[in-house]
Amino acid sequence: MSGKNIIFFVLLLFIPVSLAAHFLEWGDLIVFVAAGLAILPLAAWMGTATEEIAVVVGPTLGGLLNATFGNATELIIALIALKAGLVGVVKASITGSIVSNLLLVMGLSMFLGGLRHKEQTFQPIVARVNASSMNLAVIAMLLPTAMNYTSQGISEQTLQNLSLAVAVVLIVVYALTLLFSMKTHTYLYDVGVAEAEDNEGSHEQPNIWLWTGVLLVCTLLVALESEMLVDSLETATSQLGLTALFTGVILVPIVGNAAEHATAVTVAMKDKMDLSVSVAVGSSMQIALFVAPVLVIAGWIFGQPMDLDFNPFELVAVTVAVLIANSISSDGKSNWLEGTLLLAAYTVLGFAFYFHPVITSIG
Amino acid sequence: MSGKNIIFFVLLLFIPVSLAAHFLEWGDLIVFVAAGLAILPLAAWMGTATEEIAVVVGPTLGGLLNATFGNATELIIALIALKAGLVGVVKASITGSIVSNLLLVMGLSMFLGGLRHKEQTFQPIVARVNASSMNLAVIAMLLPTAMNYTSQGISEQTLQNLSLAVAVVLIVVYALTLLFSMKTHTYLYDVGVAEAEDNEGSHEQPNIWLWTGVLLVCTLLVALESEMLVDSLETATSQLGLTALFTGVILVPIVGNAAEHATAVTVAMKDKMDLSVSVAVGSSMQIALFVAPVLVIAGWIFGQPMDLDFNPFELVAVTVAVLIANSISSDGKSNWLEGTLLLAAYTVLGFAFYFHPVITSIG
Amino acid sequence: MSGKNIIFFVLLLFIPVSLAAHFLEWGDLIVFVAAGLAILPLAAWMGTATEEIAVVVGPTLGGLLNATFGNATELIIALIALKAGLVGVVKASITGSIVSNLLLVMGLSMFLGGLRHKEQTFQPIVARVNASSMNLAVIAMLLPTAMNYTSQGISEQTLQNLSLAVAVVLIVVYALTLLFSMKTHTYLYDVGVAEAEDNEGSHEQPNIWLWTGVLLVCTLLVALESEMLVDSLETATSQLGLTALFTGVILVPIVGNAAEHATAVTVAMKDKMDLSVSVAVGSSMQIALFVAPVLVIAGWIFGQPMDLDFNPFELVAVTVAVLIANSISSDGKSNWLEGTLLLAAYTVLGFAFYFHPVITSIG
Repeated sequence: MSGKNIIFFVLLLFIPVSLAAHFLEWGDLIVFVAAGLAILPLAAWMGTATEEIAVVVGPTLGGLLNATFGNATELIIALIALKAGLVGVVKASITGSIVSNLLLVMGLSMFLGGLRHKEQTFQPIVARVNASSMNLAVIAMLLPTAMNYTSQGISEQTLQNLSLAVAVVLIVVYALTLLFSMKTHTYLYDVGVAEAEDNEGSHEQPNIWLWTGVLLVCTLLVALESEMLVDSLETATSQLGLTALFTGVILVPIVGNAAEHATAVTVAMKDKMDLSVSVAVGSSMQIALFVAPVLVIAGWIFGQPMDLDFNPFELVAVTVAVLIANSISSDGKSNWLEGTLLLAAYTVLGFAFYFHPVITSIG
Repeated sequence: MSGKNIIFFVLLLFIPVSLAAHFLEWGDLIVFVAAGLAILPLAAWMGTATEEIAVVVGPTLGGLLNATFGNATELIIALIALKAGLVGVVKASITGSIVSNLLLVMGLSMFLGGLRHKEQTFQPIVARVNASSMNLAVIAMLLPTAMNYTSQGISEQTLQNLSLAVAVVLIVVYALTLLFSMKTHTYLYDVGVAEAEDNEGSHEQPNIWLWTGVLLVCTLLVALESEMLVDSLETATSQLGLTALFTGVILVPIVGNAAEHATAVTVAMKDKMDLSVSVAVGSSMQIALFVAPVLVIAGWIFGQPMDLDFNPFELVAVTVAVLIANSISSDGKSNWLEGTLLLAAYTVLGFAFYFHPVITSIG
Repeated sequence: MSGKNIIFFVLLLFIPVSLAAHFLEWGDLIVFVAAGLAILPLAAWMGTATEEIAVVVGPTLGGLLNATFGNATELIIALIALKAGLVGVVKASITGSIVSNLLLVMGLSMFLGGLRHKEQTFQPIVARVNASSMNLAVIAMLLPTAMNYTSQGISEQTLQNLSLAVAVVLIVVYALTLLFSMKTHTYLYDVGVAEAEDNEGSHEQPNIWLWTGVLLVCTLLVALESEMLVDSLETATSQLGLTALFTGVILVPIVGNAAEHATAVTVAMKDKMDLSVSVAVGSSMQIALFVAPVLVIAGWIFGQPMDLDFNPFELVAVTVAVLIANSISSDGKSNWLEGTLLLAAYTVLGFAFYFHPVITSIG
């Protein structure tokens, strides 16, 4: 058994720990930490199960599965937080997922990859299409916020309507980017796919029933653990002296994206930058073009007023993250200094969110 | 007679219709729609006449004519609206022309062109020079607005003075871009010119007197129709339940730019992307570097306080349009997904302007 | 003796003139102008002395010296102004140095170089790394300002803490960019270095003691003159009818950067664009990643509350300067029109700062 698997099994122990902490009332802080750790191996297995099923059902359906379940953990946590009325945390975790994928994950990949390899390259056309998609996502998040800022007396209903209309546009665009990468322009993405297969190594045909079972069990457990995580969040973070904003933007995304972080960094060190960049940028695209709009629509269905009117400071964070990530990735080359610049941007943003004096309720 | 010409002659019928509606008082809504439709064939013929005269007078004087009369329809509508004191509509139509050329026209060209051709290419250097010119234009629009926002008690006179100074700089830059493209660096633009000639096909020497006559008559009629369009605008749009902002940003530019729309899309489908992009981007450059400054100076002469202090939300729209258009065009390649992204950005902006609760008078 | 040296010796006469004006109380305006002119030759000799010492001590230590003393004049003026409590002027001169290096110096270099050479080229990878570093610097300046704007009741202490944390990150990044350019990726910068040596011509081994003496004397005199410049600044500029903002953003950087201006333009006309761009962009990087953070830390030591919370309008200026400079330099090519666009952006910003009605004290 590899070292990675041992860590996973140890982390699984936090499932009973978190349950015990919850029912025996050991305190919200312990529930919060235990549930956060318990989610990590479950998220990793959901990723593996999705990939294994994808091998059996073929590239088209498999790609679709991957695209839908790729951020399943974040989506589950966010849906539960949304149902609990924690709209502020949901928005913060959208912001944070985008920022941490573009700056922390891509920065660490380029930095550690760049320490081993003087200059690393990846497909610039794919990077550009991704960059433009992320620009669109920023525009979609910017407009409702800017509208709220530049006009007096805008009603919550109008923001809701605008956000719903924008959400539908984003989901359509997301579907079209899948069509582009999986049907009409697959050749642009071939390097990344080859790297992905190469990374997994040759293995026999996976057992689809086994993996579907794993996927279902893990999804159930993640729901369960997320519920405890969300319930304990408010008390636990205030005990740690952290604001809800910091928790949502910095802490939650690290739990939710741990699996992608590990993959992107590992393959970057093997000089497979196409795969590494596509994991990091692809994950933020999924959040922006699929998860966020789904949450807007879910909020409308739940009767929770989830719109795309963000805290202006969160918007500043997403905008600068997208701009600097685009500026670094658009030439299809990277080195350790570029990784450092992304990490420095993340650090500076982290400080800013830490010091930001948000006193608003997290709801 | 081609199908295109039949449509033109049918649309010409709206000249008498609009006159009848105006003098027989059929209501502002009918006047507005009829005048809008009547302007379309006149704008197209002004374009053709300018190009035919350009063939006779040679490339330099011809290029200058084209550059000056290329947006004559917008300029005429805007001047009449400015004289009528509708400063808000004038500013909105400047914003809207830039946004619709960069997103709607270029987006539709890249989308429809990309459906036929897997990947289309155009001169990246020209795209970059254009991108930087548009950035300058955004800066020029941004500064007076930002100044008004970041200081209290700024006087209208100061904004006027700044806007006039900026307008003179922009007109000088516009003259220099003409010098660049027509004198010192023509070789960069040769592909586009060749495509343009190729597009027109070989034809005999045009009759300069005939076309000058057409140009004069059309200019007169457009003035006339624009007057009716502007007079009926306020009542008509409020009958339709639309705000002045939506009308200025979305509706007026579609009428004013219809001819360019048709040209850019047609040539994109023939894979002449250099010409297509230069029509779309060139048209927004003309608006930003020539039409807008001319209107500022005209407003000063008319005694109408026309400055470059825009509604911040319009500024956001222009800024994001320029950023996403630059990010998509700067590599000199396009495909259907990039066209889709531009169209999606236009759609999202359209929704935002539709929902924007401007209650200010359109003056 | 060359014409350049004659000008230098004439300008040196302003040292006694400024002293006489100061002690005989000829008025603050005369002290201000004389001290400004006296600083020019001193700054130039400090530059020469640093370069000569660098030849002796070898590339690594020499590069470090250059990087530290390259903006010594600005740093000295700023430190004295900071001690005098003129925090507003210090911030304005940071903004102004970045803007004038990127727009005025680079613009003039590309314009004059482009008049002689149809198209000039430079290393695009270096341009991109610099662009990303400048983006990071903008983010670092943006965050404290945005935080102050997007939250109510933020304490000065919090802004100070955030600014100090950000300053440390920027200094670390600056050290890493030196490591990158002088150790791990020197080959990317070889063209610029070759051009620099070529520019100086062959000359014998310099006398290190002589030049160290020159450096010390010049540093002392610049301190002295800067003190008079800062003391007379408030009265002199108000006599000229200029705001402190305009003085700090436009006038002070022209004095402080005169030597770099001359070098960058001269070498651009000799078609050594790698060197020219690296002087202009390198100087703004030093200001943003080294001088500004050092001033924050110095302010903390002096007990002067120097933070990175800028006037929002200054921030707009830096942001647009960085964006348009990046958009023009990122392809590694330039021509006279691109130089014109940078100069036009500078002119427009200059007008805006001239008209900006800041009534706040310069302290």
